[in-house]
Amino acid sequence: MSASSRILSLAVIPGDGIGPEVVAQGLKVLNAVLPQDVKLETKEFDFGAKRYHATGETLTDADVEALKQHDAILLGAIGDPSVPSGVLERGFLLKLRFLFDHHVNLRPSKLLPGVSTPLKGQPEIDFIVVREGTEGPYTGNGGSIRTGTPHEVATEVSVNTAFGVERVVRDAFARAQARPRKKLTLVHKNNVLAYAGHLWTNVFNKVAKEFPDVTTDYIHVDAATIYLVTDPGRFDVIVTDNLFGDIITDLAAAVSGGIGVAASGNINPGREFPSMFEPVHGSAPDIAGQGKADPSATVLSVALLLRHLGHEDEAARIEAAVSADLAERGDTVRTTEQIGDALAVRVAG
Amino acid sequence: MSASSRILSLAVIPGDGIGPEVVAQGLKVLNAVLPQDVKLETKEFDFGAKRYHATGETLTDADVEALKQHDAILLGAIGDPSVPSGVLERGFLLKLRFLFDHHVNLRPSKLLPGVSTPLKGQPEIDFIVVREGTEGPYTGNGGSIRTGTPHEVATEVSVNTAFGVERVVRDAFARAQARPRKKLTLVHKNNVLAYAGHLWTNVFNKVAKEFPDVTTDYIHVDAATIYLVTDPGRFDVIVTDNLFGDIITDLAAAVSGGIGVAASGNINPGREFPSMFEPVHGSAPDIAGQGKADPSATVLSVALLLRHLGHEDEAARIEAAVSADLAERGDTVRTTEQIGDALAVRVAG
Ligand SMILES: CC(C)[C@H](C(=O)O)[C@@H](O)C(=O)O
Ligand SMILES: CC(C)[C@H](C(=O)O)[C@@H](O)C(=O)O
Repeated sequence: MSASSRILSLAVIPGDGIGPEVVAQGLKVLNAVLPQDVKLETKEFDFGAKRYHATGETLTDADVEALKQHDAILLGAIGDPSVPSGVLERGFLLKLRFLFDHHVNLRPSKLLPGVSTPLKGQPEIDFIVVREGTEGPYTGNGGSIRTGTPHEVATEVSVNTAFGVERVVRDAFARAQARPRKKLTLVHKNNVLAYAGHLWTNVFNKVAKEFPDVTTDYIHVDAATIYLVTDPGRFDVIVTDNLFGDIITDLAAAVSGGIGVAASGNINPGREFPSMFEPVHGSAPDIAGQGKADPSATVLSVALLLRHLGHEDEAARIEAAVSADLAERGDTVRTTEQIGDALAVRVAG
Repeated sequence: MSASSRILSLAVIPGDGIGPEVVAQGLKVLNAVLPQDVKLETKEFDFGAKRYHATGETLTDADVEALKQHDAILLGAIGDPSVPSGVLERGFLLKLRFLFDHHVNLRPSKLLPGVSTPLKGQPEIDFIVVREGTEGPYTGNGGSIRTGTPHEVATEVSVNTAFGVERVVRDAFARAQARPRKKLTLVHKNNVLAYAGHLWTNVFNKVAKEFPDVTTDYIHVDAATIYLVTDPGRFDVIVTDNLFGDIITDLAAAVSGGIGVAASGNINPGREFPSMFEPVHGSAPDIAGQGKADPSATVLSVALLLRHLGHEDEAARIEAAVSADLAERGDTVRTTEQIGDALAVRVAG
């Protein structure tokens, strides 16, 4: 959004399953929090399983052009058991991350008061994962020969570039520097994945020199999963590869209150293309349409969206509202809409 | 060990850090449990950091030939901060797994009574992970160009073959079939790693037809980490790729009592080469030489070793001894040796 025009032009992708329900509440809260002089313009897109079944399309060139016209994208969830595994993931979600160069995949984990964790003793958890979003084993490089025969060989190539690693590492250092603890942990598997591991480690150590006030350390991805359940408080900011980031952020979400409250941003920091914000949870078809889904993760994704566009105050107000709502929630069972209403009241108040 | 000769010829690799301490207790318990008519012959090997610093060697051709002469290998731990990351891992541990075709990397996770877990509510945890040990991203395929420059590109190639996948999947099905729940879960990331994912999924579904009494399901590796902390009881047997197996077995160890009790076997099921058994924990240089290390993981690895060689009764006796010891342990602080002594008494009695 350009500050002068004061128009926030948002592409909205409700998607599949519980996507439409949670996105409706995200928009409600967004409307409630925005200052009077900012005009919200939304355009809805019908990506997902229904469109795929009707047309065979996941994301056309025209779609991409249309999405580019917006300041940001809010996504509910994409995916349905009726669509073969991978079709929508690669044909839509990953395609957009690559086309719009969403190289910073931002996933905060904070265990809020009142939220239950599977871990004993309610540990303090407050860290963010900066996951690389456009490289690693996610590039789709690879192939198979003698496919379907007893002599099949299938490969997947993890592609890592100094350019790609350095920009995300630098972004993570800047985020670490802006936090009180100023600590950044590199997570990789450099004792086994030597080529990629050396690149990541060397770039990390090089960029570290530009941020002398940031404390750094390194841990292997396998050990990181141990720390995430035995000592999650040790983490402040984590930077990691695309696949490791995928794995540890699901675990991080689980220990910090579950994917019901886990938000994420697929960010193009230079704003050359719109960034996309989405809850970490999927489409959860088993509870779709029943008003049971918790919209908090989507609402928190809206906060990340606002922060990305420079609306820090509004982002903080949303986060405070969700935090207060969770703290007072207790055992009350509320519908998706009731939670959205409560949050809208809080951010407006 | 051939049943006629009744000699168990064991290669012993104490290794680095706490390795020698825990291996000593493992051997003590092994001696105590073996029937009178089985003669244990051990030969110690000096692999690890010390030898590397003295000679630059990690594992020579002559070493490999010498190791081949044994029925099995018991390893303490290899690794020291004085050696650059990856040198001993790739030059010794992984090299042996590949040379001796240890394609079944077996890692049981059982939360024993009296053992504390970071998870709330002491859930029932009793599953095994069958991790592929000779393929995937561990093959060392890959490389880098323009290394060290801003234009570096580094790749890692995950190599997967129908032959390699099928044999480990079949092994896992057989293990699942032999357990009361008869359930096998494939863990992969087939929605993103499409080539390897399809191979794994197709082979899994094909082999499943030969085991109609085994219930099967599939989950993505990221979701698997969520289940491991929210519902670990859902797992019975897991089969997975080398890298995913590395990651989830550390997490599995953490939730089921920590790496102090996590055993593993690098198994060549056809016994063409000796299999290697080792605790999942590393060399823990910070507590080395202080008698603080828990030898239970090594002792449980000895049980896996005995089972592999056909000594089921002795294996079960060791497992029962460790289980009883842990249940009665309470807050008593004992040395490595005291725990070993106690276990030796139990298995003999
Ligand atoms: C749906 C899938 C392609 C995606 C990923 O692997 O990145 C998801 O797991 C995520 O974390 O956003
Ligand atoms: C030390 C390392 C090479 C090894 C692996 O990655 O396999 C270890 O983490 C393990 O799980 O045995």
